[in-house]
Amino acid sequence: MKKILNEPANVVGDALRGMALAHPDLVRVRTDPALIVRADAPVRDTVAVISGGGSGHEPLHGGFVGPGMLSAAVPGPVFTSPTPDAVQAAISQAEGGAGTLLVVKNYTGDVLNFETAAELASAEGTEVRTVVVQDDVAVRDSTHTAGRRGVGGTVLLEKIVGAAAQQGTDLDGCHRLAERVSERVRSMGMALTAPTVPHVGEPSFTLDEDEMEIGIGIHGEPGRERVPLDNADGIVRRLLDPVLEDLPFTEGDEVLLLTNSMGGTPLMELYLAHGVAERLLAERGIRVQRRLVGPYTTSLEMQGLSMTLLKLDAELTELWDSPVHTPALHW
Amino acid sequence: MKKILNEPANVVGDALRGMALAHPDLVRVRTDPALIVRADAPVRDTVAVISGGGSGHEPLHGGFVGPGMLSAAVPGPVFTSPTPDAVQAAISQAEGGAGTLLVVKNYTGDVLNFETAAELASAEGTEVRTVVVQDDVAVRDSTHTAGRRGVGGTVLLEKIVGAAAQQGTDLDGCHRLAERVSERVRSMGMALTAPTVPHVGEPSFTLDEDEMEIGIGIHGEPGRERVPLDNADGIVRRLLDPVLEDLPFTEGDEVLLLTNSMGGTPLMELYLAHGVAERLLAERGIRVQRRLVGPYTTSLEMQGLSMTLLKLDAELTELWDSPVHTPALHW
Repeated sequence: MKKILNEPANVVGDALRGMALAHPDLVRVRTDPALIVRADAPVRDTVAVISGGGSGHEPLHGGFVGPGMLSAAVPGPVFTSPTPDAVQAAISQAEGGAGTLLVVKNYTGDVLNFETAAELASAEGTEVRTVVVQDDVAVRDSTHTAGRRGVGGTVLLEKIVGAAAQQGTDLDGCHRLAERVSERVRSMGMALTAPTVPHVGEPSFTLDEDEMEIGIGIHGEPGRERVPLDNADGIVRRLLDPVLEDLPFTEGDEVLLLTNSMGGTPLMELYLAHGVAERLLAERGIRVQRRLVGPYTTSLEMQGLSMTLLKLDAELTELWDSPVHTPALHW
Repeated sequence: MKKILNEPANVVGDALRGMALAHPDLVRVRTDPALIVRADAPVRDTVAVISGGGSGHEPLHGGFVGPGMLSAAVPGPVFTSPTPDAVQAAISQAEGGAGTLLVVKNYTGDVLNFETAAELASAEGTEVRTVVVQDDVAVRDSTHTAGRRGVGGTVLLEKIVGAAAQQGTDLDGCHRLAERVSERVRSMGMALTAPTVPHVGEPSFTLDEDEMEIGIGIHGEPGRERVPLDNADGIVRRLLDPVLEDLPFTEGDEVLLLTNSMGGTPLMELYLAHGVAERLLAERGIRVQRRLVGPYTTSLEMQGLSMTLLKLDAELTELWDSPVHTPALHW
């Protein structure tokens, strides 16, 4: 295993300490339980938007903590859900008296642990709502999920709902908005190579030199099909076609396109794929109004990418454009 | 070769078209010759700061084009210098009547081609100065270089000098500032894996599963030594010790620390290494006042990292902090 690590078992805490040193103006970090919290938390009379899940998908979610996005993030061990206690600790650190919205990617462990945390926090008098993101159109159920998985669309939801919370939208409003984004966002990903979990020490799966996995999950879960390596046009078409058909997205729709690196993809290849996607969408009469290109929902060093489309409207566009100050998104 | 490409020979142009679509508000792109220019260029009565070099190091340099940083970037083919004609075209697109500063990484091809371009532009009446960045302490000469190579320090220089140009500093002032940053910045890098150049189709070198290369260049040029894989503490020490000794950086110095991914390193490992570096510097009494952590000077999908230290003063810190609006740096 070729990694830059000290003790594999301590990788999450060690990385969090480095992150805290890198962004002292934006975040505070705790390592037991592992938490990343806005430096100015709790923000009084503002809905706390909190997410989390297994580590290894950085910058998701800790890189999105800061004004205009998340109030806190709860990183579990690599590819493993955080405990209910950790989620509850995040709620109590970030909660400013206006309630908490939990943003949960649809993986069985996350759903259960965030639900338990919500019950614990409710019992202590905090109002908690939950949105479960399930934007991945690749498979109906998977190794870690009943129903669709939550992937890249989570980033867009966290940005938009975080902006609304920052502007003073109440818990009901944030929750309705989150459900609305969730209904309008779809994703699909692919991989050329496998990630290696530090405490496992071996690649999560094997792909031959001339193979790729279409519909891959962000933990290396199997996708729709393992097929011969194709060129960029073919790869992007295999991701966008199912995404477009699913909602469906149709001619005249205005969209946000996220071209997301799975971690190890060179930026050159990512921009190239983004260009292919924009041209395919233009051919269908779908109007790309906003874009985000980069590594935002990753799977350690896995090479590959995912495409996410969000159907925009005036409100979502305004919330997307509003200021954000986090380690990974900043405008 | 596992890459997301169409025709390997067209990869730079294809990626540039995607980049133009991704950032229509920030940059304009041309593909023959390949250029990335500020959307609002030329900016009247403002020094044009222009850089370039072989592609494959993204976001360097095109990702740093925009207000507060570069006026234009000239990407050559992958790991190959741009032609003098291309550099001259960038000068004529970006030049606003206050002269041009060329920022050149010290590789023989780049130095020659930028020099020729400077002569061509001068003959047409444009005042041109050049700074050659040579921050890599790893080796004295290398495969592609007489003297030290230019690596991660280039990003810091481009940000600081770009800020000064944006504030109206004249060509003499920008040139002196660039020389001053160049004198105060030092770097060293390492690799766990090799990059694959698209038109070559095979990894640039081979490393055994238990080996790493210390002092690697950003084109996979050999470094100081090939040694057994070490833990993060050992790796960071092997990079920082030579950097500290070289300037030297000493107790009480205030510095900017750039912890740079070579491309394929997970953000988790990068933050972990950053934390190690900050602790090592604190032990030596060196005060980290600013930091940048991420993939800024890469070598395609190579896994590894580099550490860059810049000795700050009040002027450099103010210029670092001033606003920047580019695809890859934004605050």
